[in-house]
Amino acid sequence: MFDEQLAGFKGDEQCIRVVGHRGARGIMPENTLLGFEWTIKMGVSALEFDVMITKDSVPVIVHNHHLNRDITRTPQGDWLNAPEPRISDLTYEQLSQFDVGGLNIFTEYGQRFPEQIFMSGQKVPQLADLLRLINRPEFRHVRLMLEIKSDPHVPDHRDRQAQTVEAIVNVVRAHNVQARTVLHSFDWEMLRMCQIEAPEMPTSFLSQLPEEEATAGSDPASAFDAYVGTLPSVPQAVADAGGYIWAPYFKDVTEHDVAHAKQLGLLISPWTVNDPHDMVRMIDLGVDAIVTDYPARLQREMIKKQVRWQRTEENTNAALTSA
Amino acid sequence: MFDEQLAGFKGDEQCIRVVGHRGARGIMPENTLLGFEWTIKMGVSALEFDVMITKDSVPVIVHNHHLNRDITRTPQGDWLNAPEPRISDLTYEQLSQFDVGGLNIFTEYGQRFPEQIFMSGQKVPQLADLLRLINRPEFRHVRLMLEIKSDPHVPDHRDRQAQTVEAIVNVVRAHNVQARTVLHSFDWEMLRMCQIEAPEMPTSFLSQLPEEEATAGSDPASAFDAYVGTLPSVPQAVADAGGYIWAPYFKDVTEHDVAHAKQLGLLISPWTVNDPHDMVRMIDLGVDAIVTDYPARLQREMIKKQVRWQRTEENTNAALTSA
Repeated sequence: MFDEQLAGFKGDEQCIRVVGHRGARGIMPENTLLGFEWTIKMGVSALEFDVMITKDSVPVIVHNHHLNRDITRTPQGDWLNAPEPRISDLTYEQLSQFDVGGLNIFTEYGQRFPEQIFMSGQKVPQLADLLRLINRPEFRHVRLMLEIKSDPHVPDHRDRQAQTVEAIVNVVRAHNVQARTVLHSFDWEMLRMCQIEAPEMPTSFLSQLPEEEATAGSDPASAFDAYVGTLPSVPQAVADAGGYIWAPYFKDVTEHDVAHAKQLGLLISPWTVNDPHDMVRMIDLGVDAIVTDYPARLQREMIKKQVRWQRTEENTNAALTSA
Repeated sequence: MFDEQLAGFKGDEQCIRVVGHRGARGIMPENTLLGFEWTIKMGVSALEFDVMITKDSVPVIVHNHHLNRDITRTPQGDWLNAPEPRISDLTYEQLSQFDVGGLNIFTEYGQRFPEQIFMSGQKVPQLADLLRLINRPEFRHVRLMLEIKSDPHVPDHRDRQAQTVEAIVNVVRAHNVQARTVLHSFDWEMLRMCQIEAPEMPTSFLSQLPEEEATAGSDPASAFDAYVGTLPSVPQAVADAGGYIWAPYFKDVTEHDVAHAKQLGLLISPWTVNDPHDMVRMIDLGVDAIVTDYPARLQREMIKKQVRWQRTEENTNAALTSA
């Protein structure tokens, strides 16, 4: 089941899929249309990105629940100051006034990506903008790992989960990309909602063990660790919850987990792997897909290991002939 | 004179121009159309690249006089082996069979650019292909630093110089981009030829002092060092030769040379500056433009120094507000 969607994330002995994280955050501004376009053009056929809804229920592609001051400029061209507005408090019209094309290099976050180009005039995209992009004839092979964001700290959390899922699924259906989209989240409860509301798309379960959160950088990804942390086996729980992909924080992954996940028929797609040594470890563990901010860096480690990122017929075998 | 062309390379106290070297070789395959397109889209408005002619006199964009085995795959997808065919011995039809979209990372050259994406299906472009690209309405601001290659070691050197200049100038005129193009070379004799054949375009004089050649990496750029090395003052010689831009190897540049070049009314555009410390030195010296394989890296050093790469009205000032 879901062969079409999963084809973009399924590896084998000779192939591991490269998934561009927020586009290719190491090189291009994260979660921007130009970043996505470049990532696809350079040969990355699977994109990971983050979606939530605005005050007027428009699904938009942005990571944090608040606008991140480290990457956001005001219409006047100044860096955003506190307080950072919540995405859910802005209409799309209001949100689209901000420029997210560059990092403030004087911040800790800005210093994490020294090769990221500084651009101006990049607005937070609507999910619909990205779906139009991948519906170009030349981009029909592209698969999406659509992360649905969820904030358990807001009072109307359950209502917002439902609204968010409905709005996102409607846009995906309107652009007819269900056969290329995997619904992905740390919010496992919301993923069950997705399975009911959108049975035509497979679900991908993110996990991160609590003790590792501190080392995950400035991406406070998961408010659901406490739950995951109590599970006897995370892959088993993903399978029991009807998931098709298990997306663990890469430092959590063990050989035993990989073997178990494969027994259970799950695909394994760890995130976010940016250091060559960690890349090598993931390759050696035999995961299916690797989510990275640095696709070129990952390609090199795969070439050294004689592992492809596309199928043979996709003409990258030449990268391997000189090993 | 030549204000339109030189605007793309002229700096001031607040602005230094970023010139993408072979596109942006640090990130994208060198001298490829996709590399040029990305470099422009990310906000670099001046491109440096290398042009020579094929056996059938087609101007093509490629650096070495021979196909470089470290970046070239055969139509069968294997890395090119010795002997590397000469560009001048191939028709464009033959040349276009080769794929130059990826580095062989097992070579010294391949290891110099660890962040360069590996792509397939990229052929050596014709100069005409790039000129069509920059004639897109949205790319009309782009300026070209068109390096004309010359090989003094071939017997018919002078004839080939003349044929090369004629073929290139004809293509530039056919696409009506003379007002955006600077003719650039190590071969000063050929540049004099350009001044006669194409008086509507300014000339840019490359120099590299012989003792530094060994440190210039695997780019044996200049067969004309011996000549340059004997000059009492390189900027003076450039001015005497009717040049508008002096493009020295960055390690050769001294404060005195910069002052002298400015007195002479020359623009100074050192190459190829990839290390942040060298970038800072060039910024502090107050050059007009910097040629680099890593535009994003250069942007960061310029932001730290409160120097812009575009004019204020071009809306990058926000990069500087948090300094």
